[in-house]
Amino acid sequence: MLKPEILDPQGQAVQRALPRLGFEGIADVRQGKRFELDVEGPVDDAALARIHEMAETFLANTVIEDFVVKVEEA
Amino acid sequence: MLKPEILDPQGQAVQRALPRLGFEGIADVRQGKRFELDVEGPVDDAALARIHEMAETFLANTVIEDFVVKVEEA
Repeated sequence: MLKPEILDPQGQAVQRALPRLGFEGIADVRQGKRFELDVEGPVDDAALARIHEMAETFLANTVIEDFVVKVEEA
Repeated sequence: MLKPEILDPQGQAVQRALPRLGFEGIADVRQGKRFELDVEGPVDDAALARIHEMAETFLANTVIEDFVVKVEEA
């Protein structure tokens, strides 16, 4: 997701459109990216560390984006 | 996220780039969108139902995309 201090015109466009479409009560919308990685083998600490490094160096632009790594069972 | 049967060229490009960048062991990558909605008031069943409708009619293209609504504390 874009860092809180970075302007998000896509999210703002969605937020402004919602009342026109009949959806009230949404104070803010932020739009971001999501990657689902299918990992071969066990997702242990070493694999998680690699994925964290991958997200930091390649998937996210950490100048303007924050990221979170979450593990979900297949 | 794109439905499993829908081709995801962005995710495939990421997956193919990973070994070149030194990241092995990722069997598949899918790229999708993520919206963070800041809800005014309590997130009760009625609010969740509205958000689900919002996602279905407006945020996701349900012809090619699946979506999941998750509640996170602020």
